[in-house]
Amino acid sequence: MSERVKVAVVGVGNNVSALVQGIAVHRATGSLVGISRPVLDGLGVADIEFAAAFATSPDKVGRDLCEVIFLPPNNFPRLASELPLSGVTVRRGLTGAEPGEVERVAGDLAGAEVVLYAAPSGRPETARAYAEAALLAGAAFINTTSDAVARDPQVLNRYVAAGLPLLGDDLASQFGTSVVHHALLRLLEERGLTLTSSYQVNLGGTEDFKNLVENSNTKHQSKLNALAANGSAAERVQVAPLGYLPHLESQKVAHINIEAQAWGGTSVSVDVKLKVHDPAGAAGVHVDLIRIAARALRQRRSGYPAEAGPLLKSPPGTSV
Amino acid sequence: MSERVKVAVVGVGNNVSALVQGIAVHRATGSLVGISRPVLDGLGVADIEFAAAFATSPDKVGRDLCEVIFLPPNNFPRLASELPLSGVTVRRGLTGAEPGEVERVAGDLAGAEVVLYAAPSGRPETARAYAEAALLAGAAFINTTSDAVARDPQVLNRYVAAGLPLLGDDLASQFGTSVVHHALLRLLEERGLTLTSSYQVNLGGTEDFKNLVENSNTKHQSKLNALAANGSAAERVQVAPLGYLPHLESQKVAHINIEAQAWGGTSVSVDVKLKVHDPAGAAGVHVDLIRIAARALRQRRSGYPAEAGPLLKSPPGTSV
Amino acid sequence: MSERVKVAVVGVGNNVSALVQGIAVHRATGSLVGISRPVLDGLGVADIEFAAAFATSPDKVGRDLCEVIFLPPNNFPRLASELPLSGVTVRRGLTGAEPGEVERVAGDLAGAEVVLYAAPSGRPETARAYAEAALLAGAAFINTTSDAVARDPQVLNRYVAAGLPLLGDDLASQFGTSVVHHALLRLLEERGLTLTSSYQVNLGGTEDFKNLVENSNTKHQSKLNALAANGSAAERVQVAPLGYLPHLESQKVAHINIEAQAWGGTSVSVDVKLKVHDPAGAAGVHVDLIRIAARALRQRRSGYPAEAGPLLKSPPGTSV
Amino acid sequence: MSERVKVAVVGVGNNVSALVQGIAVHRATGSLVGISRPVLDGLGVADIEFAAAFATSPDKVGRDLCEVIFLPPNNFPRLASELPLSGVTVRRGLTGAEPGEVERVAGDLAGAEVVLYAAPSGRPETARAYAEAALLAGAAFINTTSDAVARDPQVLNRYVAAGLPLLGDDLASQFGTSVVHHALLRLLEERGLTLTSSYQVNLGGTEDFKNLVENSNTKHQSKLNALAANGSAAERVQVAPLGYLPHLESQKVAHINIEAQAWGGTSVSVDVKLKVHDPAGAAGVHVDLIRIAARALRQRRSGYPAEAGPLLKSPPGTSV
Repeated sequence: MSERVKVAVVGVGNNVSALVQGIAVHRATGSLVGISRPVLDGLGVADIEFAAAFATSPDKVGRDLCEVIFLPPNNFPRLASELPLSGVTVRRGLTGAEPGEVERVAGDLAGAEVVLYAAPSGRPETARAYAEAALLAGAAFINTTSDAVARDPQVLNRYVAAGLPLLGDDLASQFGTSVVHHALLRLLEERGLTLTSSYQVNLGGTEDFKNLVENSNTKHQSKLNALAANGSAAERVQVAPLGYLPHLESQKVAHINIEAQAWGGTSVSVDVKLKVHDPAGAAGVHVDLIRIAARALRQRRSGYPAEAGPLLKSPPGTSV
Repeated sequence: MSERVKVAVVGVGNNVSALVQGIAVHRATGSLVGISRPVLDGLGVADIEFAAAFATSPDKVGRDLCEVIFLPPNNFPRLASELPLSGVTVRRGLTGAEPGEVERVAGDLAGAEVVLYAAPSGRPETARAYAEAALLAGAAFINTTSDAVARDPQVLNRYVAAGLPLLGDDLASQFGTSVVHHALLRLLEERGLTLTSSYQVNLGGTEDFKNLVENSNTKHQSKLNALAANGSAAERVQVAPLGYLPHLESQKVAHINIEAQAWGGTSVSVDVKLKVHDPAGAAGVHVDLIRIAARALRQRRSGYPAEAGPLLKSPPGTSV
Repeated sequence: MSERVKVAVVGVGNNVSALVQGIAVHRATGSLVGISRPVLDGLGVADIEFAAAFATSPDKVGRDLCEVIFLPPNNFPRLASELPLSGVTVRRGLTGAEPGEVERVAGDLAGAEVVLYAAPSGRPETARAYAEAALLAGAAFINTTSDAVARDPQVLNRYVAAGLPLLGDDLASQFGTSVVHHALLRLLEERGLTLTSSYQVNLGGTEDFKNLVENSNTKHQSKLNALAANGSAAERVQVAPLGYLPHLESQKVAHINIEAQAWGGTSVSVDVKLKVHDPAGAAGVHVDLIRIAARALRQRRSGYPAEAGPLLKSPPGTSV
Repeated sequence: MSERVKVAVVGVGNNVSALVQGIAVHRATGSLVGISRPVLDGLGVADIEFAAAFATSPDKVGRDLCEVIFLPPNNFPRLASELPLSGVTVRRGLTGAEPGEVERVAGDLAGAEVVLYAAPSGRPETARAYAEAALLAGAAFINTTSDAVARDPQVLNRYVAAGLPLLGDDLASQFGTSVVHHALLRLLEERGLTLTSSYQVNLGGTEDFKNLVENSNTKHQSKLNALAANGSAAERVQVAPLGYLPHLESQKVAHINIEAQAWGGTSVSVDVKLKVHDPAGAAGVHVDLIRIAARALRQRRSGYPAEAGPLLKSPPGTSV
């Protein structure tokens, strides 16, 4: 029987809400709905357990993780009528204002094997400071944001030297716009059609989405990294500005259009509307990254574990 | 340099119009738009040449193939302002009323290496009679309709015995509803989502489509054969009745909906509208089947060539 | 203060389930959501009360109306966690097999002022027999099906002679495909655009919908009556076959497409997906028809009350 | 027989291209396709004639109007294979750099009765300077941009004092996102449904659209003015950021979503994709505004002619 994976989470937003609740539902009901890999490297979803959590907002610090996930601006829905307390008290994260903070956080990691960095994108210094804390504590680190951490050679080299795994950057959603758009463009190519033009529009209502809208540079580069896999077709694909529409709450809506030419130059058009809960798409990938990170740590593999590749948009080697 | 493939076509409907015109456009302009495989088994698209054509309607018989493809009820558009005559005169096909007809048609095949059966679905006896004529003439036979020919063991055995290739049944469009629906359902499964329900609605305006509406049994079985590859998911997929809407002309419109559950049981929905020219989707596959058939014949391979599989909905071994 | 309207319902399907539950929700919460006219002719929604109910299925007869609305094949959802019993026991309706049935039912109407005929479409004789029973009992009659009752001059004349109101036929949903399609076509015309072509596809999952699919003649005529208001445009509008997709349950999905030409002959296209709960769209109109019928009865107005016109697809004077 | 209306156009962008070409098609073919009002105040579409045109780009000045409309970045398509020269040479417009420019332009108006201001939005000073030139020349003025001209009380008062008509601001497209969205929201309300939330996304590929994206403030206020007619519902409607997608060329694509509640609180959703040629939607309204302006001038009516109201988004009295 496998030992449970102890995880520390940084940031207690919607994605962590989805992660915590989804694992609880799976434990309570045994349901495998939406779980991509019930067992990964010998570890089940129920083998993930939370050991520590960090946030900066004063109304979050000091309360139980399972209360904090429901505080606004979080708006991911309650998945079940009851969720027992976790026993994990949310601690004060890095503020950048005090000396010795990184060491303090490292000390608070409470023996976690894996640090899941799930704070908002757009603060690369903070992300790298948490990576430093994890390194001090001897933990694996997962950067789910679009900030450059794993694809920053300096950080990666330090992890390699320390013999610890480092996973990132920017997780590919389990089933989001990129996944569907990419699959349709690939299908078009496989079937011999010629792409004329294509666009995608993304609309969302979470605080994370709002941050992306206001801070779209690293995210935009990360999206281009994801589309580069489509080769020359990428030039013909346009990404409209993100739209923050609060009433969507934790849902994300995407409109995808593809115009192409088939045999004889005749026209083909494909229009897609996709509606997902963004935090669920993230959590479904978190559970895989956590298990990959834990196994790599236990096997003393250092640096970037290549098997995480399909789950990330900007792995080491892509543009910063 | 390869010898040109001589093809006889049975039925001069929209699909043959798209095939004849598309090859002419490719020859005139060199355009590779919409051509899946520019070279297949050493043969280019321009290596296909028409040697004979058969129809039953009195106003078609006796005229040049390149005139007949524009006669109503054909409604596939003109792809270029000019199309030279082919030099192939459309001959009277099998009527079932005269003795010795099969032999007559076999004699009229004019040295064709490949017989492309592209008449309307729904007349299995006629389809098999043409297969018999091709066999007498020593030609390969391609059944593009949903009628059982290649998946009829008796017919297949005769072809094997004669050392001739037999391809069929029911071609999968180059890029049609089945292809897109199947790809999305597979993607869903790959990403670990759980299908709740799905539907497709198909609307079209060609004479072929009208025939399908009126004669939907073999077609329906063939669609089920195509979906069976999705395994248990197939039970949750519903196909609405076909709708014949004349004003769509040679376009086909499909509405596809997929409802699924992701991580934590959260809902995911995908809605697709697909718009294609049905005959172009057929012609794009015809050019591959013709070249596979020609190569198999020239290599003296008998029976069903397995490489045709991805291009067919109901290959040998599927339900009749 | 107004006296409550006593209503007898014939048929205890999804539409009656939506009606009964919606009134209960309104009574319990005061909510006016989805209620078109809170007060109509001095009567509120809460002024409607059920006095009798009729069904033919043996497992429905003898049980309370509020239990029967949840029996399969009904699949309209529960709107609230609790629904008290109604005190109305469902009685055996007309079977056509016994003498004196019409008189028996008339006697069982229990002093109802309004008879709401909400059985499945497709049994015009039965519909007219209930109209006869209502007439005997001195009640107003509402035919919500597409069968010809109010537009049958013989029946209408009998109601006029008896001094009783008769409303029908075929109710226009509060917000369904016809309403939206009609509004968009009218908008197009108002703005000076020229319609090229248009289609609608309707998909549903209720037992009523299944009956329509199997018995589409009177329904089809009724749809044409509804579209005739669009004048010449109606010729360019095509209605695809109805699709019965059980997994939709009580939802109806419609796909509407409009292709048009604007200034200079440039193309305009509008694509709509509409998703509604069909029984709710019916119930929202039932509450208006019931109140119109009651008021007409109390004011001793006989025959067809013109103010019901906008709520009906085939009023008196349209084709049978 | 009516005297032709002489029009001067300011700005020779896509909208003027659509206007000039559409009138030419109507003259050549008599086609009334897409023409909202064939005769308005006694004037036909063919009664509009161009007398002068102004642009600032050096490659436009000095060439015939019918050549200039096809110069990039204009990308509205050619409507007919041939378009004769107009005989109107494009003159240099206001640059703001020289003294006496307004007087020069007034002199160049060449007896025009109506000045149609169709330059890009976002330069209110320039718009008002042209209004001054028109006033000097005794012409009616139409401001089709979202800049405040007619709704600027100072400008309006000067027109009233001079006895000249002034029309504006910001024309409502003949059939655009606002028109369709507004109609559906109104329909929802008429039928008694309760709006939950709604959004619209607008994507376009013209230079005008690009300007709007970069300069969205006056446009945004103008859109709010247009939606204010929906009353409280406006609060629940969100407008996503405009997306400039060059490959759309002169097409505009809008995605509209409406979520509502019907009877019993059941959910209703409407999704619309709208595809139009934006310049055609503008030109179809230009021909009406020009004729209203000409008639008002000829009847010596001064100030804002109220009958222009339905064609404008921000008439006098709305917020600046």
